[in-house]
Amino acid sequence: MDFKNIPNQSRPQKGQRVARDIPIIRCAGEARTETRDVLAAEEPLEIRVNGESLAVTMRTPGEDRELAAGLLFAEGLIAGAADLLGMKPDPNPANPDRANTLLTAVKPWDGADARSADRRSLPATSSCGVCGKRDIASTRCLAPPIAADAFHVQAAVIYALEPRMRQAQRDFARTGGLHAAALFDRAGALVALREDIGRHNAVDKLIGAELLAGRTPLAERLMLISGRASFEILQKAAVARLPIVCAVSAPSSLAVRMARDLRITLVGFLRGDTMNIYSGEQRILFE
Amino acid sequence: MDFKNIPNQSRPQKGQRVARDIPIIRCAGEARTETRDVLAAEEPLEIRVNGESLAVTMRTPGEDRELAAGLLFAEGLIAGAADLLGMKPDPNPANPDRANTLLTAVKPWDGADARSADRRSLPATSSCGVCGKRDIASTRCLAPPIAADAFHVQAAVIYALEPRMRQAQRDFARTGGLHAAALFDRAGALVALREDIGRHNAVDKLIGAELLAGRTPLAERLMLISGRASFEILQKAAVARLPIVCAVSAPSSLAVRMARDLRITLVGFLRGDTMNIYSGEQRILFE
Repeated sequence: MDFKNIPNQSRPQKGQRVARDIPIIRCAGEARTETRDVLAAEEPLEIRVNGESLAVTMRTPGEDRELAAGLLFAEGLIAGAADLLGMKPDPNPANPDRANTLLTAVKPWDGADARSADRRSLPATSSCGVCGKRDIASTRCLAPPIAADAFHVQAAVIYALEPRMRQAQRDFARTGGLHAAALFDRAGALVALREDIGRHNAVDKLIGAELLAGRTPLAERLMLISGRASFEILQKAAVARLPIVCAVSAPSSLAVRMARDLRITLVGFLRGDTMNIYSGEQRILFE
Repeated sequence: MDFKNIPNQSRPQKGQRVARDIPIIRCAGEARTETRDVLAAEEPLEIRVNGESLAVTMRTPGEDRELAAGLLFAEGLIAGAADLLGMKPDPNPANPDRANTLLTAVKPWDGADARSADRRSLPATSSCGVCGKRDIASTRCLAPPIAADAFHVQAAVIYALEPRMRQAQRDFARTGGLHAAALFDRAGALVALREDIGRHNAVDKLIGAELLAGRTPLAERLMLISGRASFEILQKAAVARLPIVCAVSAPSSLAVRMARDLRITLVGFLRGDTMNIYSGEQRILFE
């Protein structure tokens, strides 16, 4: 492969943006304002090593070479900069995701069978939900959009969810380290709560419990999560047919795009009697 | 395989604990108190499907069947409870991790080549850092412990890190959705800062940038991260030979165990002039 020198790229490349400015509806009590919000950008990066797809990580675009170098280093595929022969975005025009595909070349490591890109398991990444996937195409959600049905809830019901979840989180106050996911019915009554050190684990446990009890699909339920809404949370919600997903913190840009594509109502920054509606506002009724 | 019925397990099994009570040093200014802290438990769970290792996820023990059911559902390996033929912990006494190994049997899916456990990429999990790994053995850190050397810093230097990082986080205030990782020298001067929607990506970018600049190992540096300290963060620090890791929030139980094994100084809940020291207190000097 023809690799260029490795620049110490510390800013996003041309065309890469670390944030996205999107239209939202900001709500305070029964009042609504159409406004705009700036969200952290989230896009998949496929890292290939010596011609083989190694992993996909969901990351904020920019500093992709640094990210790949750090990841290959942490995983033992390179021992230092000298082992890194080159890095460049995929130049192949047939690859629709070439801007998000980084080709790397590393020095082959004699006797490193157990750690080679081929034999080893996929590497550590930070992007739960896709990090085990080898290429970008496999990260796309297969679930069809949720019908624009007659499922509606009052805004006041949404505002009541977070205090109810917090009340139920006995363990949270003890450790400060647990994420929570909670399921509610359309009247806002708590149906189930699960906690885990991993946000996506909490969602998997919550939906898995309903599945084992024969209560999926969750077409008449609302889910609240304690942290950020990433696109993987939206994927899990789509598979379970959840029409409304609320998060205490911010959604990522990709989570919003996926919510809009899948017609899931997405609420973020749900705090007190304020919230931002990022998608599917028609399911939330105001007085 | 001889699978039992699937109980709707909503509490941890016997021997599984969702929290760990460990000795720590609580610091306020120059005052230190030996006390105890309760941390969220974090352990790897290996999920096998029809005899094949599918993935390892770092999770809070308990509700393992629900977690596996939710994960298999989200990933399209089962379409409902009827596709799940059985789940049980590995009964094989030769497996030292059998309590953390869950065997599942799913109904084979005709024509599902692209989604079969064999052909597909590893599934979504929440545990960045190991989630692409197929078995528990491959999650163990290969880096040797860090020497108990002469690297020391004053407590006052540690207390000054967080305001300095926050000051440098221009993007954070804009999106509310970005994690940060920052590197400092022994006097507390900021060396580098990276942000990403994923905490582990921010660490990879930070360490990767130093590697590309030829400045690894980072034996004379301190790292601060904006969120929780998971065990993957400690793994990345160990490979980079970082002697001191600080986190604004809680560490997991496994992060503390790994920090102690690797002789990394681990500080958590670094807020104002208070902090908890979980490991390696001899590197921090008090007046």
